[in-house]
Amino acid sequence: MQEESYPIRTDLALESQERLQKDKGIVRGVRFSEEPRGNGVVVSTVIIETENAAKAMGRPRGTYVTIEAPEMIEEDAGYHRNISMELAKILRQMLPVSKAERDLDKGLEVSALIVGLGNREVTPDALGPRVVDNLFITRHILNEFGKYAFADEDVSKVSGIVPGVMAQTGMECVEILRGVVKETNPDFVITVDALAARNVKRLGRTIQLTDTGITPGSGIGNHRNALNQESVGVPVISLGVPTVVDAATIVSDAMTELIEAMSLSDLEKLDERERRELSRELLSPQLNGLFVTPKNIDDSIKQLSFLISEGLNIALLGNKEEGKGI
Amino acid sequence: MQEESYPIRTDLALESQERLQKDKGIVRGVRFSEEPRGNGVVVSTVIIETENAAKAMGRPRGTYVTIEAPEMIEEDAGYHRNISMELAKILRQMLPVSKAERDLDKGLEVSALIVGLGNREVTPDALGPRVVDNLFITRHILNEFGKYAFADEDVSKVSGIVPGVMAQTGMECVEILRGVVKETNPDFVITVDALAARNVKRLGRTIQLTDTGITPGSGIGNHRNALNQESVGVPVISLGVPTVVDAATIVSDAMTELIEAMSLSDLEKLDERERRELSRELLSPQLNGLFVTPKNIDDSIKQLSFLISEGLNIALLGNKEEGKGI
Amino acid sequence: MQEESYPIRTDLALESQERLQKDKGIVRGVRFSEEPRGNGVVVSTVIIETENAAKAMGRPRGTYVTIEAPEMIEEDAGYHRNISMELAKILRQMLPVSKAERDLDKGLEVSALIVGLGNREVTPDALGPRVVDNLFITRHILNEFGKYAFADEDVSKVSGIVPGVMAQTGMECVEILRGVVKETNPDFVITVDALAARNVKRLGRTIQLTDTGITPGSGIGNHRNALNQESVGVPVISLGVPTVVDAATIVSDAMTELIEAMSLSDLEKLDERERRELSRELLSPQLNGLFVTPKNIDDSIKQLSFLISEGLNIALLGNKEEGKGI
Amino acid sequence: MQEESYPIRTDLALESQERLQKDKGIVRGVRFSEEPRGNGVVVSTVIIETENAAKAMGRPRGTYVTIEAPEMIEEDAGYHRNISMELAKILRQMLPVSKAERDLDKGLEVSALIVGLGNREVTPDALGPRVVDNLFITRHILNEFGKYAFADEDVSKVSGIVPGVMAQTGMECVEILRGVVKETNPDFVITVDALAARNVKRLGRTIQLTDTGITPGSGIGNHRNALNQESVGVPVISLGVPTVVDAATIVSDAMTELIEAMSLSDLEKLDERERRELSRELLSPQLNGLFVTPKNIDDSIKQLSFLISEGLNIALLGNKEEGKGI
Repeated sequence: MQEESYPIRTDLALESQERLQKDKGIVRGVRFSEEPRGNGVVVSTVIIETENAAKAMGRPRGTYVTIEAPEMIEEDAGYHRNISMELAKILRQMLPVSKAERDLDKGLEVSALIVGLGNREVTPDALGPRVVDNLFITRHILNEFGKYAFADEDVSKVSGIVPGVMAQTGMECVEILRGVVKETNPDFVITVDALAARNVKRLGRTIQLTDTGITPGSGIGNHRNALNQESVGVPVISLGVPTVVDAATIVSDAMTELIEAMSLSDLEKLDERERRELSRELLSPQLNGLFVTPKNIDDSIKQLSFLISEGLNIALLGNKEEGKGI
Repeated sequence: MQEESYPIRTDLALESQERLQKDKGIVRGVRFSEEPRGNGVVVSTVIIETENAAKAMGRPRGTYVTIEAPEMIEEDAGYHRNISMELAKILRQMLPVSKAERDLDKGLEVSALIVGLGNREVTPDALGPRVVDNLFITRHILNEFGKYAFADEDVSKVSGIVPGVMAQTGMECVEILRGVVKETNPDFVITVDALAARNVKRLGRTIQLTDTGITPGSGIGNHRNALNQESVGVPVISLGVPTVVDAATIVSDAMTELIEAMSLSDLEKLDERERRELSRELLSPQLNGLFVTPKNIDDSIKQLSFLISEGLNIALLGNKEEGKGI
Repeated sequence: MQEESYPIRTDLALESQERLQKDKGIVRGVRFSEEPRGNGVVVSTVIIETENAAKAMGRPRGTYVTIEAPEMIEEDAGYHRNISMELAKILRQMLPVSKAERDLDKGLEVSALIVGLGNREVTPDALGPRVVDNLFITRHILNEFGKYAFADEDVSKVSGIVPGVMAQTGMECVEILRGVVKETNPDFVITVDALAARNVKRLGRTIQLTDTGITPGSGIGNHRNALNQESVGVPVISLGVPTVVDAATIVSDAMTELIEAMSLSDLEKLDERERRELSRELLSPQLNGLFVTPKNIDDSIKQLSFLISEGLNIALLGNKEEGKGI
Repeated sequence: MQEESYPIRTDLALESQERLQKDKGIVRGVRFSEEPRGNGVVVSTVIIETENAAKAMGRPRGTYVTIEAPEMIEEDAGYHRNISMELAKILRQMLPVSKAERDLDKGLEVSALIVGLGNREVTPDALGPRVVDNLFITRHILNEFGKYAFADEDVSKVSGIVPGVMAQTGMECVEILRGVVKETNPDFVITVDALAARNVKRLGRTIQLTDTGITPGSGIGNHRNALNQESVGVPVISLGVPTVVDAATIVSDAMTELIEAMSLSDLEKLDERERRELSRELLSPQLNGLFVTPKNIDDSIKQLSFLISEGLNIALLGNKEEGKGI
């Protein structure tokens, strides 16, 4: 059965895995593990090992790590520090650095370009731009003054860019990034983006990190054409948080559940294909172009962008008690 | 059957009327008329005449006029002028002014307080505050220089306020308005607010005007406690545009349709009560706190706030070729 | 000599005092004291005791406390907490509460309305609105759930409002506040506003608190008509930070110094009156409507609004380790 | 006498020319002409023809055209259209296109990258980013659908980018642009930037266009390293509007005038060198980091960005009655 039979609109590998497992049981070529980290935080890892598995999952081979933290968007300064640290740890592991440098207590001396994808003007899509706003940018200081400016400690060269979306620039993100990467020669790129989830309970409570770059059509805007090592020229780590669910998705899911419920109770007249078709027929085309988002999305984006930029600051510049401040 | 049996989450009287008519045929005490105005614009009027009808409709007696214009949120300067003019005409008719003054070509010399309800920081709820930003405010000029400042023409005293939502102020809107009205003595109040609709196709394409004030729980925030002549002290005209649909509403509607479709086709085993209960059981509690909104909500709010402030400027200050400019 | 001979454009009593002392020595009816508080923080107090002194100082009788902290706008989370605490201490002393309640470690159970004066859309004038954005608002929670919502501890009723400036509302601030105070009955009002200083070195580094309310023409906007106990109906504490200097002021000051320098060195031909006139003649009328502000004013306003809202939160709600979070 | 003797902090060639002419009379190698265009609009042209003249003027050889329109920042929709048209005409003349294509009524089929320089977060520096926000971007549409999408008319490929300032990105603008230009191959680049003037009366009322690119240190931020054909790879047209004057500049100018006035009247004891030194000594170092800007800078930037983006839309896409709308 091909991918198109699964109109799963999700940017989370974890959700594709859940769906696939539910439908077909264990999938060959996909490794999955889950680990609680205290305070309700759960870290899951999906590794897609083969091309066949990649096809079934509808996303490229590679490692997808998900941090789920139910309280992520609630206000509690201390807790966020925990998640920032968790994020920093996982990110450091994923960076293309030597084994010794994967320890967060070790200094790091790499050159990283952080890319804030999405549209600054549309709140649920503004996560990437806002994270870049909060980053501790060091490249220009190191270029001008050297390590002297940082008491001779090991400091990574951090640069950042908010390329904008195609409707604003007329250019593909990949065109802008390829150019900037060629000129400024970072060791790797980290993209930050708002994602679409399938399950509303994940909105604002989940961070996905992957070493595969970003697949086309991700996010709620149209960041077209893959950003990955092949297209950009250096390794691309992608970090994202789901902030929206497609309106059509939640309706479709609800209807599927309903049909299942009715079938089980008293009819069982419809087979799965018929059920899907019925549900699709009834799906209003007016749902296109609509998304579902939490009422407090403005506050969520503010908090999430702080949490993630802290995580990036710690991963790239080391674990100091104080990051960049507010 | 009481109101609570209809968990219709809509701020549009037109939608309540549609639903009621569908379920029960014509409702006594509710008058309804519809009139096309060219360019696809349709103006409908719902008049609730009796207390019984008010109960059935779940909203107070009075007149509710709705302007529907499918292209309202698309970009076309000329077209918006049309809608602004239509809005101004209807508004002028609804104002508590003399019959002679209802003619838009006549000058007007009233004192109006425009209230931008909602939360400036949450895009789909920011319509009211943004409209007040674009108004042509004259009260302070007239108070200081008199009509001399306007070439001795008749000019209304226009004042405006953005009271904020209760979570920001700790006060009910009605407390703030009652105080401000007592001190500044406007002839009437016009509130502007973002509304919730039931039908996604109305998002950003419908303007409702009513002479009944605003009923509790309207809008997407919690503008609690009615704003009307009784509570505020002067007549309250309310103007609103739906910008969101509750996530639970679209799912519930979809499921109801599905059940109906299945019943009709091959079972008819469930009566209406059973169908509603089934649909309610399956409704995820996680949908609470989520809303559905167009992807281009930021642009929509910008355009709508311009269109509506123009309508208000024309209604209150007369039909000059140029309003306040950009 | 009357006030008008001193075209001192400053909202800081401290600067009026400095100028007066420089020109005439000690002024009767004005008491002045200064106290270092560590970390470079200096707290000065000007008390205007008589009507004559009020005339000479060009501002009403009362107490004016100034916190000067050179590093206030630099980034250092810990330091700001110090200033917030200092601000809370001074503010608690100034509140119209019983002697016992002036101790910051004591709970407080008053009802306070915080007013963010100024224009949210003009960065250097946005301090007041931004402070209200960051406050911990409790009035609506206490009204609905009582002290139960706060573990039965003593909690003040805090409400907040951003009335807007007259060009936006058509109303005087005093009209809005008088109305809101009558309806909501706070024990006192605290206004927060951006101020104009005379000396550029005070920009963003000074907080003034006074129990006299706000005098007309203060701030960079036109918040006309005094806000004080007489006009508003309850005591008015005013808190402000200078964010701009009039362009004409810095030029005038520079020219005065230059004339003095030249006179002293080789001419002494001009007496003071002639000097002032010369300087005034040369003052370009084009300087009207211009102000001088730091290049990083956007960051400064962000930090200052956080610092001040923290100070207010601590003063009104007690000294908990965590205020409202981010 | 070298450039450094003239600490003229201005980005306007017109002001350098005025100062030079005042001090030394006509300068060899600089051609100057001025032409009124009605409605108080004046267009002046400074052409720097030789390397010596470039040295004296402190800016590269090339053509600098200035549009002065006293009413530019006032509200009057019709008038702005005039200026947008004037701007479009001058810009079309300056573009590296064939002679036939310099006629504004002719279609144009070039590929242009518009660069919004400056810092979006600092109001007086936000002109460039805001202009790009309002542009009619076509490149992605033409790339996907060809001219078919525009009724087969000649349409230029317009792309836009807001690179951010070095403190936000860690990269020089020139690095970003060089990369983007290499990847996307525009025929030329047009930069838009906020400038510093010397004379306050030019703030917000003057547009400068030049075919020389941008010289280092221009603007109020630090857009370092020249952007020109040599560094970027294609011709660079620069467009700017002064939005600030250095605080030190207005004070220094005022003092110089004062000294001149005093010298002429009764002393003449100081020669020019002594005067300058005196004035410099008295210049407060605290003026560094401060700028002078109009009180209504937020409104000015909004209007100017609209006016300029309209001018760019007309120049690149032809003179249609309606540009992009609001």
